[in-house]
Amino acid sequence: MHHLITWIEEKLLQVNLVNTMDQADGFSRLGYTKEEQASQEQFRCIAKELGLQTHQDAAGNQWALWKVDDSASWIATGSHLDTVYNGGGYDGAAGVVASLAAVKLLKEASFQPKKNIAVIAFACEEAARFHVSTIGSKAICGILDKTKHASLEDNNGITLREAFANCGLDWELLHEARLEDHQLEQFVELHIEQASKLEKSGKELGIVRAIAQPTRLRITTVGKTNHTGTTPMEERQDALVAIAPIITFIEEATVDIIAQQQVPLVATVSTIQNSPNAISMIPGEVVLGVDIRSTRLQEKHELVKRITDYARSIEKDRPVTITIETLVDDEPTQLDSSIQAKLTHICEKIGLSSLPLDSGAGHDVMNLAKRWPCGLLFIPCRDGVSHHPSEHADSEDLLKGTRVLAEYLRETTGNNSLSLE
Amino acid sequence: MHHLITWIEEKLLQVNLVNTMDQADGFSRLGYTKEEQASQEQFRCIAKELGLQTHQDAAGNQWALWKVDDSASWIATGSHLDTVYNGGGYDGAAGVVASLAAVKLLKEASFQPKKNIAVIAFACEEAARFHVSTIGSKAICGILDKTKHASLEDNNGITLREAFANCGLDWELLHEARLEDHQLEQFVELHIEQASKLEKSGKELGIVRAIAQPTRLRITTVGKTNHTGTTPMEERQDALVAIAPIITFIEEATVDIIAQQQVPLVATVSTIQNSPNAISMIPGEVVLGVDIRSTRLQEKHELVKRITDYARSIEKDRPVTITIETLVDDEPTQLDSSIQAKLTHICEKIGLSSLPLDSGAGHDVMNLAKRWPCGLLFIPCRDGVSHHPSEHADSEDLLKGTRVLAEYLRETTGNNSLSLE
Repeated sequence: MHHLITWIEEKLLQVNLVNTMDQADGFSRLGYTKEEQASQEQFRCIAKELGLQTHQDAAGNQWALWKVDDSASWIATGSHLDTVYNGGGYDGAAGVVASLAAVKLLKEASFQPKKNIAVIAFACEEAARFHVSTIGSKAICGILDKTKHASLEDNNGITLREAFANCGLDWELLHEARLEDHQLEQFVELHIEQASKLEKSGKELGIVRAIAQPTRLRITTVGKTNHTGTTPMEERQDALVAIAPIITFIEEATVDIIAQQQVPLVATVSTIQNSPNAISMIPGEVVLGVDIRSTRLQEKHELVKRITDYARSIEKDRPVTITIETLVDDEPTQLDSSIQAKLTHICEKIGLSSLPLDSGAGHDVMNLAKRWPCGLLFIPCRDGVSHHPSEHADSEDLLKGTRVLAEYLRETTGNNSLSLE
Repeated sequence: MHHLITWIEEKLLQVNLVNTMDQADGFSRLGYTKEEQASQEQFRCIAKELGLQTHQDAAGNQWALWKVDDSASWIATGSHLDTVYNGGGYDGAAGVVASLAAVKLLKEASFQPKKNIAVIAFACEEAARFHVSTIGSKAICGILDKTKHASLEDNNGITLREAFANCGLDWELLHEARLEDHQLEQFVELHIEQASKLEKSGKELGIVRAIAQPTRLRITTVGKTNHTGTTPMEERQDALVAIAPIITFIEEATVDIIAQQQVPLVATVSTIQNSPNAISMIPGEVVLGVDIRSTRLQEKHELVKRITDYARSIEKDRPVTITIETLVDDEPTQLDSSIQAKLTHICEKIGLSSLPLDSGAGHDVMNLAKRWPCGLLFIPCRDGVSHHPSEHADSEDLLKGTRVLAEYLRETTGNNSLSLE
């Protein structure tokens, strides 16, 4: 398999548009930019080398097609080619290259699929540019709002509609990217883990059961600003002093729910706006942003209830008012259990250890999983680091993932017993 | 005294450049601006009406002079004419107008002082424009640094040196504003209280014992940022969760020291910078600004010690580092006890109740008190509100303060027993 490792390493450099993965500033290839387009162009080159047809849909997603039967449905794998600002070259690209490598492995083994195979490079997966994630896969699933999402703006004031136009896409044709139910049969994504459970467990691959989705709160505490020097302690309505204990409480309650329920749950007070935030002024208003994630809706709601009760108890003790708004309350994504079983079985069959786990981060597959049976395969990444220039995955691990994808495609699109070894 | 109340009200409007004190947006008359200059021009008009000489010193302070003897020293009163953005029309102006009214009262009583009397309208008392307070009175005391302070910038990037030039002042001549020790004998300022101790006590005037000065800390907590969705609770180095309890601790420790030592002390976590402050990112660095004020250095230092000890205990429990820097550690200003006694005695003599108290806010007098015997007289302001359009002081209270200032000037500059009633 040495030639395939070399091929994977070459193609990873090619879609990353570099000569070495060691880039001090990482990779800044945002969605619907010339940089993403350049990477997509390399994707199409590689697809053609493999004898695949290429196709760009109305949302700018790139498709590499191994079509064997017009009337058969499609089995797809893939991931994305865009990055965050100064991100890594594996988040997304690893899954795209492994999917292409899996096709290469099948082709080299003279495999003849009975169903159509597609490798998809989704456009604009990261929220870094338009503050909304997985735009390409949302379009495929028909869950983008043509009116609302058109006016999403990047930091330079360029709208999503304008970004489409700059890429030669017509926002008005967005609906054409939507797939009918019958057009796709299954989808499996390969992605770096972006956490360190695999590394710690010593297992080779992760079989994802569910993808946590965020519930997000905005907690607004209103007291009264006043001069720090002339307002005695007992006459204050300090919004920051009032709300500070909730930061500690949210951590404690989360750890408590995890201990009681044995479920994955994380919660973070990640943003704080203090007003007037001047050294001689008592804080009059504080707004906290809380990000709660779990693969279970019930535990997220339990935590929100505890936070709300705690806020009410603060209001009884302190002369402040606290408003809690739920900005996001997304249902966790459950991945298809038969695909999980199949991927686990494949790992066993080809001699790779695997770990069932959950994903804390979102991926394109979460959109497709709402409509089609889907799977998500994790390969380890060093120290769990991602969205950073030091993000790294071993070529050996990319190869292991490739072998599982190839076997998955083989079992799903054919029924011959051809060995891929 | 009815005519004097009317005069005070008229002159208060005149220096505030308005026809009514009821201004929805308050007063925005920042230091070294055309607005402050326009107010100073009205000050000079009033001074001339009273038969006083006028003089602008090299720092733009306005002097109204009742000179009787070239060889005699000066007894001075006064305050400032600048305001914060959207401030009130009494903070500063009340003291300037009351000082002029005291001179009017003495003149109408045909009083003949044996020493020279000056009313000073200090330039740029508020820190609102250049983030440094009491610039005019600092110049008189010779404690401005000609090099360092020249480059102070306002929010439009205009330096203090340029602002001087725009007012027809030459920064290079700043030293000429400095008074020699022998040139001034005593100074008393009248100011609105900017707190509500007088109102609550029912006393008519406040005799200030000491002016609290700030000690300011910058507490920097460094953890490690990471993805909120993929980082388990037990693997986090969340800087905000780590430092949040210190906000509560600072309030508790302050209240505890007040209870133990029976001293005036206030402490506020007034600013917070959270980084990266993004909804999907765990806080990696948090910087708190702490403002501590007291008329006693010892208790401020006791609080800093307790905060430091508490930070060390957090470092033992959490994977973060906490750095505490002391940015400001000013010695409280003690006002002259014989002047306090004199003002208290004057109140008794003319039938006004008085309350000894401390000032939480800084005033021009705090600079002069470093070199000359000084006093500070407070009149009540409604609900303790200042630096706000709703700031208000009653004309009756301004008159009471005026009577005390007049009697103070009479007793200090003469020895006749002329009644001012």
